[in-house]
Amino acid sequence: MSADVPFANVTIIGLGLIGGSVGLAVQEYMPAARVSGWDADSSVRAVARNRGLAHQVPDSLEAAVADADLVVLCVPVRSMGTVAAMLTGKLKPDCVVSDVGSCKVSVAEAIAKELPGQVIVPAHPVAGTEHSGPEAGFASLFQNRWCIVTPIKGAPPEATVRVIAFWRRIGATVETMAPDHHDLVLAVTSHVPHLIAYTIVGTASDLEEVTRGEVIKYSAGGFRDFTRIAASDPTMWRDVFLSNKDAVLEILQRFSEDLTALQRAIRWGKGDELFGHFAKTREIRRSIIEEGQDDARPDFGRSDHVHPLPEDEAATD
Amino acid sequence: MSADVPFANVTIIGLGLIGGSVGLAVQEYMPAARVSGWDADSSVRAVARNRGLAHQVPDSLEAAVADADLVVLCVPVRSMGTVAAMLTGKLKPDCVVSDVGSCKVSVAEAIAKELPGQVIVPAHPVAGTEHSGPEAGFASLFQNRWCIVTPIKGAPPEATVRVIAFWRRIGATVETMAPDHHDLVLAVTSHVPHLIAYTIVGTASDLEEVTRGEVIKYSAGGFRDFTRIAASDPTMWRDVFLSNKDAVLEILQRFSEDLTALQRAIRWGKGDELFGHFAKTREIRRSIIEEGQDDARPDFGRSDHVHPLPEDEAATD
Repeated sequence: MSADVPFANVTIIGLGLIGGSVGLAVQEYMPAARVSGWDADSSVRAVARNRGLAHQVPDSLEAAVADADLVVLCVPVRSMGTVAAMLTGKLKPDCVVSDVGSCKVSVAEAIAKELPGQVIVPAHPVAGTEHSGPEAGFASLFQNRWCIVTPIKGAPPEATVRVIAFWRRIGATVETMAPDHHDLVLAVTSHVPHLIAYTIVGTASDLEEVTRGEVIKYSAGGFRDFTRIAASDPTMWRDVFLSNKDAVLEILQRFSEDLTALQRAIRWGKGDELFGHFAKTREIRRSIIEEGQDDARPDFGRSDHVHPLPEDEAATD
Repeated sequence: MSADVPFANVTIIGLGLIGGSVGLAVQEYMPAARVSGWDADSSVRAVARNRGLAHQVPDSLEAAVADADLVVLCVPVRSMGTVAAMLTGKLKPDCVVSDVGSCKVSVAEAIAKELPGQVIVPAHPVAGTEHSGPEAGFASLFQNRWCIVTPIKGAPPEATVRVIAFWRRIGATVETMAPDHHDLVLAVTSHVPHLIAYTIVGTASDLEEVTRGEVIKYSAGGFRDFTRIAASDPTMWRDVFLSNKDAVLEILQRFSEDLTALQRAIRWGKGDELFGHFAKTREIRRSIIEEGQDDARPDFGRSDHVHPLPEDEAATD
C-alpha cells in the first residue's frame, strides 16, 4: 500500500450513479490513484469518457482490469456473479475485489463462487439519489454518508483495512458488520420502506373512483414523498428484493402485523392507542435529527450537494 | 361582499400552524379585511398577540366572533363540534362558518348539528409542515397549494363563491367536490400514507436484533423520509383517522392486498412482476413532476418558503 493511497490502481465496473460517483470521488480525493472504468454498454462508456468518470474507459474489460489493485463492482446485485465470471483469469493475484451492492450475503457468495482465489471485501455505501446512469454521479455523493464494510470470515484483515481506508478517503464514515446482519438492517431501513412506497403508489393508481389526475393533484398531502422513493431504479430494486428475500420477508411480516393492529384500532375507535403510537414515533424522528443523520431543513441538507440533475432514463447502475 | 374582499371581518378559531397561517395570510393578501383570532389556550393567545397572527386576539370568544362575516374553525377535527357548540347564539345571522379540517363529512355534520341555522361551507387547504402551534405558521403556506371546498347540498351558492374567493386571495388554487369524494381522495393521498409511515417507524423500533441506534444511523436509506411524515402532529392525526374511518379502512384493505401480492412475488422470485410494478410507479412519479405539484429538487421546492422553524411541542392545531 502506497503511503499516499490505499490502492494505486482502481477499476470500477458499472458506470451508473454509484460507479460514476466512485470514479469522480477517487479522482477528487485520491488524485494519486489511477482510475479505470468499464461498462458493458458502449454508449455508457462513451458518456463516461465525456464526463471523465475515470482516467481511462477502454472498450476492453481485460484492459480495464489488467493493472487493478482494487476492482469495485457497481452493477445490479443480480449481475454481480455474471460480471465476476467475466473477470476470471484477468486479475492480478493480489487484486482485491469489492462492490457497492445493497445486500451482502448473496453478493459475496456470487462473487466468491466465480473468483475463488481472489480476496473479496464486500461493501455497501448507503447513499444515492433517485437518478440513474452515467450522467447522474458526482464526487461528493459519499460525503458524510455511511459505508458498511462486511468482511468475509477468513479473508486477510489487511485487505479489509485498505478498503475501509479507501471509503474514508472518499468521504464516508465506515462501519463494519457481518454480512447477514447488514442484510437485516438494510431490510428495515431501506428495502421494506421502498417496497411500501412502491405499493402505495400502485394502490392509489388502481382506484376506480379516484382518478389518476386527482391522486397526482393532491399528492402534496404525503403521497408525494412516497412517489419520490418509488422513483428509484426498477432494475436495482428488483434485484435487491430477489437477493435479500429472507430479511425482507421477515420485516414485511412484522410490518403487516403492526399495520393490522393500527387498522383494528381505527375500526374500533381506539383514540388513545392511536395517539400513543403517533407520539412515540415522533420521538424517533427527533432522535434521527439529533444523531446528525438528518436535519430539520425540508431538504434534509441534500441541497448541500448542489447538483441539479436531469431525469435520467438509463438504468445501468 | 365588499368590492375589495370576500369577507370584511374574519375570525379564526384555533391558532396553530394552519389557523396562524390563515391569519397572517389574510393580513398579507387582504389587508382591507379585519382579522380576529381566538384559541382555547391562553398561552397560545399570548403568542398569537406577540406574533400578530390577527389584529386582535381577545380573551373572550364572544368578542372574537361578534362582528365576524366569516368564522374559520382551525381546530383538530374531533373538536369541531365542541367549538361549534360554543358559538351558538354568538354569530351574526349571515355569518358564514367554514373550516380547514382534513376530512369533510364528519366535520360538516358536527358543525351543522350545533349551528343548524348558520350557513356552512366546509373547506380543506391541502398544506402543512411537520411543525405545530402558534409559532409555526407563515403567510405563504397556501401559495400554489390546493384548497378543496366541499359545498353542502342546499347551501346558498353565494356563500360558496365567497369562500372560494377567500382562498384564492390567500394564494390557493381552489377545487370543489362532494364531501364524501374528498374524504376518499384524501384517504389515499394523505391519510393512509401517513399511517403507513407511522407503522414502519414503529416496526423498525421494535426489532430486537437491530438496535434503535442502527436504525437511526442508516436511516438515510429510505427510512428517514418515512420518519419525517411520521413526525406530524399526533392529535391531528388521531382525529383524522377516527373521523375518516370508512375511507381509510377501504384504502388500507386494498393496500394490504397489494402488499401481500408483492410479498408473494418476492417469496417466489418473480422478477418480471416486480420490475413491471416498479417501472409503472416510476412513471407516476414523473406525472407528478409534470403536473407541477412537485419538482425534482430534493426539497420539492419547500425551501421557497424560507422559514426555518424550531421543533415545536405545542399541539394546538
